[in-house]
Formats: sequence, structure tokens, C-alpha cells
Amino acid sequence: MKFHLEASLRLSADAKAAEAALSDFFGKAGPILQKGAPDGQGARVSSWKLAGSKIDLVIDSDRYVRAHDALLRLRRPLSELLGKQYRIGVRGMDITRFDIEVDSDRAIEHRIPYVQEIKFEGGKLKIALDVGPQGTLGQSEIENRIPDRIISLLEDKLQSYGGKTEHWELLWESAAREPKFNRDPTEEMQKAGWIKHGSSRGQWIYGPQATHVFRTFEKIVLEEIIGPLGYREMIFPKLDTWDVWKKSGHAQGVYPEIYFVCPPKTRDPAFWEEVMDYYKITHEVPLELVKEKIDLPIGGMCYAQCPTFWGFLQGTTLPSDELPIAVFDRSGTSHRYESGGIHGIERVDEFHRIEIVWLGTREQVIAEAEKLKACYKHIFEDILELTWRTAWVTPWFMAQEGKTGLSEMTGAGTVDYEAVLPYNGNWIEFQNLSVNGEKYPKGFTVKAQSGEALWSGCSGVGLERWASAFLSQKGLDPSNWPEEFRRRCGKMPRGIRIL
Amino acid sequence: MKFHLEASLRLSADAKAAEAALSDFFGKAGPILQKGAPDGQGARVSSWKLAGSKIDLVIDSDRYVRAHDALLRLRRPLSELLGKQYRIGVRGMDITRFDIEVDSDRAIEHRIPYVQEIKFEGGKLKIALDVGPQGTLGQSEIENRIPDRIISLLEDKLQSYGGKTEHWELLWESAAREPKFNRDPTEEMQKAGWIKHGSSRGQWIYGPQATHVFRTFEKIVLEEIIGPLGYREMIFPKLDTWDVWKKSGHAQGVYPEIYFVCPPKTRDPAFWEEVMDYYKITHEVPLELVKEKIDLPIGGMCYAQCPTFWGFLQGTTLPSDELPIAVFDRSGTSHRYESGGIHGIERVDEFHRIEIVWLGTREQVIAEAEKLKACYKHIFEDILELTWRTAWVTPWFMAQEGKTGLSEMTGAGTVDYEAVLPYNGNWIEFQNLSVNGEKYPKGFTVKAQSGEALWSGCSGVGLERWASAFLSQKGLDPSNWPEEFRRRCGKMPRGIRIL
Repeated sequence: MKFHLEASLRLSADAKAAEAALSDFFGKAGPILQKGAPDGQGARVSSWKLAGSKIDLVIDSDRYVRAHDALLRLRRPLSELLGKQYRIGVRGMDITRFDIEVDSDRAIEHRIPYVQEIKFEGGKLKIALDVGPQGTLGQSEIENRIPDRIISLLEDKLQSYGGKTEHWELLWESAAREPKFNRDPTEEMQKAGWIKHGSSRGQWIYGPQATHVFRTFEKIVLEEIIGPLGYREMIFPKLDTWDVWKKSGHAQGVYPEIYFVCPPKTRDPAFWEEVMDYYKITHEVPLELVKEKIDLPIGGMCYAQCPTFWGFLQGTTLPSDELPIAVFDRSGTSHRYESGGIHGIERVDEFHRIEIVWLGTREQVIAEAEKLKACYKHIFEDILELTWRTAWVTPWFMAQEGKTGLSEMTGAGTVDYEAVLPYNGNWIEFQNLSVNGEKYPKGFTVKAQSGEALWSGCSGVGLERWASAFLSQKGLDPSNWPEEFRRRCGKMPRGIRIL
Repeated sequence: MKFHLEASLRLSADAKAAEAALSDFFGKAGPILQKGAPDGQGARVSSWKLAGSKIDLVIDSDRYVRAHDALLRLRRPLSELLGKQYRIGVRGMDITRFDIEVDSDRAIEHRIPYVQEIKFEGGKLKIALDVGPQGTLGQSEIENRIPDRIISLLEDKLQSYGGKTEHWELLWESAAREPKFNRDPTEEMQKAGWIKHGSSRGQWIYGPQATHVFRTFEKIVLEEIIGPLGYREMIFPKLDTWDVWKKSGHAQGVYPEIYFVCPPKTRDPAFWEEVMDYYKITHEVPLELVKEKIDLPIGGMCYAQCPTFWGFLQGTTLPSDELPIAVFDRSGTSHRYESGGIHGIERVDEFHRIEIVWLGTREQVIAEAEKLKACYKHIFEDILELTWRTAWVTPWFMAQEGKTGLSEMTGAGTVDYEAVLPYNGNWIEFQNLSVNGEKYPKGFTVKAQSGEALWSGCSGVGLERWASAFLSQKGLDPSNWPEEFRRRCGKMPRGIRIL
């Protein structure tokens, strides 16, 4: 990675008198420009010139001291030199050229903010930043470290296209239990009238029997986890605004899977009269006209379930004796625009999840995760009697945001729970549990009275996934279900009969 | 209302030989064109002319026999006359002019399908339909009664702007109970840390205490209604597509209050890379760019809660002994783009509702409504001890769709439940119950084995509204709550303390 920066420092007066002192300063600037870099690396002033009341500078550098950092490093000692001895102030800086060159195996075709041009030549991306009098990147963007964000972006992007593999490490595996069933539970539930397709993609309508199975899972979670571990129920909102996703980190990359939400531009019925009239006459909704009349997206339907919880604590400081805090939500649906094809209830666009969230000190959060894992093991082993396993995997936020290997994250991570589907031999991820480190408390500015770092964790119990795991191994006939599950399930409700 | 229609009937051959017979036919066509109209009213053929192999017609009419109906009425006897005696067929018809004139106190400025021009002159709308060789309205649109849809639209529209008043008729009123509280419960809950604003408009995050009150309401509904009346739980989808709203009738007018949902045009990450890069560098979401990358709206977030249920029964026939069917759903949120301003939890954009749905014969549905009303009365009188009243009001579907006074709807309608808010003296609608007649079974093509008409009803228990009614009359201090409520509520959970 190479940087080439051309900039001028604007002075409050002609600095002719200081020319010798400046020559001396730039001659000895090496240590400033190489501090922190490996031997022989860093930035250098390739040329400088005093032109009346400005100093023109050319700085070349490698990745270890980036050229714009070098410029910022020079500003203060130069100001001191000129101010003390010559009563001349450094008024500001103008950037006239800023080029970055980085190794790459591909071109970038789309626009990037603050970038004027990207060429791909000889295995390198040659990037000209949008500087100069008409440019978008000037002194304040340099001071706000915009070039660093561009460089991080390039690093993440070029690395992630190298085909980073997901981490997966087996932690524990149950005994292989003899399956009671070997068919696709979605097909069987459809035949039995337990579920029907909804009118949207990846959406199901659950009849009385399927709903009762879901509610039995919920009852198990309440009796085996929520009650004994003392979780308190809350109601988290189900429409997530950009503001929430900015703080949770989802705004970095969640777009391809979101069901976006747009409000009407106004709720004045007269504004919508043309749409209503069109519909009443043609019996078709004029979609292009509707699109004109809706506003920019304000966010999307609930994707992850816990981000909206954090608004409850946003900007607060928590008393030490209030920690750890443990809450859960089961108040609505989550929606993801999943890849196409037929997946039955194993992969759906609209799903139902009990979301468990806890926060406290690092030790408290890690200890709470262990308690939850013990509860899950008991449920999957002794109540659902599944063939299942659990593995340490790349956490979602690391996969999405590239936060690997931060030392402050030691102890954070995600555990997946997987169950085998006897009808096709695949393992389905039916549950997970994440320790998210400081991510959320930092993102939503929640602090501990003690000053200690706050950590948090979350774990989603996806009812469709539990049903996929359980019903594919045990089938739809209650007489094949484990005794402990049957006891909690009680009498199955009648289904709705049709002719 | 006046109609003026100019059209030609295309014949399979020159009809010169039939000219006298045609003259005789049109001379005696009066009864055909006036049948069903009051004396002296109806349509008339103002002129006709045989021009080789076509017959040019001018028809003028009033509202009693609309000109296009008159044209259709003439076709068959003319075909018989020409076919039997002259072996000439009527091949089709071309519309060259179709004008409608209707009294109005306002102009219509927007486009209406199949309409070429609308002028407003002298208290009348003068409408020229889009006919002729390049026009959108021809024979098949006449046969499909498009002009009738336009006329219905005009009638509804011109009537509804006359300021139709909502019907409201008191059915029953409780004794006025001494309020235990006279402050705004939303403000008090905020002060007590029970709730916080969500990040979206009209959205709240409910802490442990508020959630526990909601769950106590739910428990009351389960114990006093769902259990005793034998309702079965189902899970209704929470993303409503246009297809559902076409069948439920909401597509006619619900647009101003919808949170519209748009999926991404594709879930290919490369397609979204520019958006992600923009965000990572600027920390702002590029909303205009996102809007380009999302697809047309596929529908919206759940508005009414029962329409998506009907997909479960769509196109089926129900055995007589399966009726009545009684189900409920409590699986997620509803969202309405409400009018602005501050309403606290009394009027919210995101709310939580237990939706109760029943269907059967007319008698069964009306009888079930009475049972529900008795349960509600018991709850509001003996458990919540509210000051409340109930009134017969204009049903939502009549208000929205103008289906007033249909004889087949006798017995259908909506009952509102209202409670007084002591802090401002207003009455809040906190509950309703509707008998919807044949509306939904017809819309979703659900039939009864017996051939009898199927009716349905629905009733939404809005938890925010119940909380508004209850907490504004009883306050937040459990010691002021009625004994029967306290017993079901049990111990209130601790709230989350902040510094």
C-alpha cells in the first residue's frame, strides 16, 4: 500500500524570514514521520517549498505511517516553530492531490464516497481521492480520519473476496438417537393440514396443531430457562429504524436480506385518491404509482431481535447491584429476505423467535452464557431427546464487520446448535448463543457505575428451527414423542377439517 | 346522471336487405331499453343508421338503464333478427364516444383509468371515456362492466365528500366508578421507567412492569374467553401482500395508513456493495441509493390482523359439523401510520393485539358475537372495574367501502367499547367487535358444505388500548387495582433501575 499526498499549509503571513529554520526542520523530520513504524518504514517529505505565505508539501508513505497522518504529525511542531520564533500562524491546509495504491485481484466498479477515480492496473488499484478546491475531501475530512475509513474498507473488501472460510469447531455431540421418522416434516405437516403457505415468500400460516407445538416449545423455554434463571419479559419493537441499525452495526452490511419499510409520504386521503380510484376500477394495485407516493425507507422489519431492546438503556449508567440484567422478548415476528427455492419451515422469510438478552461485566456475561448452555443441553437431551451437536463458529458480527482478533473480544463468540434431519442427512442450525463483548453497550452508550466495561450476550430460540429439528427426528405422531415433551404438550388440539 | 354513447355494431355482411326489418326493430325497441326503469325513464336510441356492414347507433340514457347496458341489451335480439332471417352475424362493436355527466360540487384533478377527460362545469362533472381505435375502453371493457365501476366510484366519491357522519348509538353504559387516578398514564409510566420511546414514530419499548400488565390482560383473555369458549390458537402471518388485501377489501382504501414493505431487488451482496461502502465511510445510509435498489412494494406490515388467517381456508369447503370455527392469534405486532402529534400509548403506530376470529352460518356467527360480548362485559365490569360504555357504530368495511344498507348484511355491524380517561375527560375506543357478514368468506372463496352463506366475525383486543383505559382509571400503584385484577397479576416484576 502506497500513499502520495500533495498539500499546502496556509500561513498567516509571508514566512521568508523562517526559510532557513524550515529547511532545518524538514531536514530533521524523519523521526516524527517514522515513529511507530518498523525500521526503514514510514512516511517521508519528498519535497517542500516555501511560496510566500504557504508551504507546499509532497509526502510519500507506506501503510505504517499513512501520508495524511504524517501531515497531521507535522502540523503541530511546525506551528510551534513558526509561532514562537516568527509570530506566524498555520491557518489551515489545502489538499491538492491524494493517491492511494493497493494490491488487488479485482477492479471496483462502483462509486465510493470521497473517491474521484479508481483504476485497476497491473494487479493494483490506483485510487485518486476527491481533493482540490471543488473536492469533497479537505482538511476536516483528513482530521476526521475519512482516509482511514477508506483504507479499512479496502482492506476488508480485498481480504473478504479471498474466500475467507467460516470457522467451525465441534464442542460437543450427543449420542446418535434412532430417528422415529425419516420424511420431510414440512410436507407431512402440509398433508396433515397443520400448516399452509402464506401469500408471501417463505411465509406460513400455522394451524392449531403446529401452533400448539410452538407454544409447547415456548412453555419449555419459560419453565426451564426464563423462570429458573430469573429473566424478565420485555416487549422489543419490531420495526427497526436506521438509527438502531447504525448503533447495532447492522447498517454496515445487512441490506441484501432486509424487508425495507417505507411510510406513505402523507396520510392525506386526497393524496391517495388516484391510487384508490385506479384499484376500484381495474382491481389491480398501481404499483409504480404507489412507489411514487411512498417515502424513503425508514429502516426495515425486525431482522435480529435484540437491537431495538437497547433503546431502553441507551445513554444510561447502570448501578452495579443491578447487574447482570437478563430479559427476553417473544412479542413478534422476524423477517429476512432469504435465498429463493423451497426450504419448507427450515428456512423461512418470516419466523418466530424467543430472544434472550443479558448484560453485565465480562465475567457475569460469560458465566450467564454457561448457565444458558446447561439449560439448552438439558432441554435437547432430556426433553426433546434430539440427535444434536454444538460448535464454536465465526460470530455474526465478526463475519459481517471483520472484527477478528481484537484482544478486547477474548471470550466473545458464537456457539451454534445443530440437529440432524434424518430425511436428508443434513445438519440444521436450530439455535445459537452469542457473547457479543462490548459491541452493544458501546454502540448504544450504556455504562456501568463501576466504570468496568459492559458486555452482553444474546440467544435466539427460533420456533420454526426447533420444530424442524424436533419433527424431522420424531415425526408428527405424538405417540412417538419423548415422554417429557408429551407431558408438557398435553392434549393436542383438533385441527381444522376441510372437505 | 346522463349517458351519451356512440357505437357501431360490426356485421358479417352488408345488411341492406334487412333495412326495413331494422327500422321496425328500432321503432319497437322502447320496452327493451326501459325495462326495470321507473315510468318514462331509461335509455333510448336517439339515432341509428345502416352503413353497409355496420350499424351506427347513438344511445342516450339516464341512471336507470345506463347507455352501455342498453347497447348490450340490444345485441342479442339484433343478432337473432339478422341471423335467422338474413344469415348475417353481429361480429362485434366499436365504441366511438361515451360521455357521462354527473352532478358534483367539486372537480376531480387526478387521472382515472379508462377516462380521457374530466371537466367540471356548472355544477357537473363531464366525463369523456377513453374510447375509439386508440382508446383503452372497448367492447371487452363494456362487457366486463368497467363503466359500472367508474359510476360506482363517482357515486361513492361524490357522496363521501358530502361529509357523511359516523353512526354512533349507545348500547349500554356502566355505572360511573370513582377514578383512582387522574393523570396521563403514558407520562407516569415514563417517569416510573415502565416504558421508553422506541426509535420509530408512535413506537414504545415496554419494560418488565408494563409487559407484565400486558401479559396479565392476555391471561385474562385466555382464562375468560379463549378457554371457556373453546377458541384454538393459530399463528397468522404479519406481512400482508396485495393479494391478501385485494381479497379482504383493504386494497380499496387502506394506503394512507400503511407501512409499505419493499424487498431488495436482489440479495446479491455485490449489488449492495456501493451502499455498504458508502455507509462504512460516511456513517450515513445513502437513502436515495437504497430506494433505487429496493423493489416495488409487495404489500405492507400487518394492519388488520385477521386477513392473513383466511389464506388457511382459501378455496375450501367446510363440513357442517366443523362450524362454527373459532380461532385466535397473538403472534405479533400491527402497524399503522397514524396522524402525527403526541398520543402516548393511547394512539400508537406499532401495537399489540389479540385477534379473535370466528365463522359459521349467520345464526352461529351472531350467537358467538353475543357470547363474546357477555365475556367482555364480565371482564370490564368484574375484573378491570372500568367506567365504560358500548355503542353501535359504522363498521370499518362500510366506512371504507360504502357497503351501506345491503339487505344481505342485516345483523352485521360493529360494536365499539369505550372507556373514559379521567385525566382529560375523553372517551377512548379500547376494544371492538365486528360481525362482517359474508365479506371474508366471499372474498377468500370459503364455502359451507350445506350451501348456506358463511358469515364471520372478528374482535381485536388491543393491549395498548386496554392499558390506556385501565391505567388511566386505576393508576400505576397495584394497591389501587381491583382485587380480581391483582389476583391474576400476582407479584409485579422489578423494573430495570438506572442511575
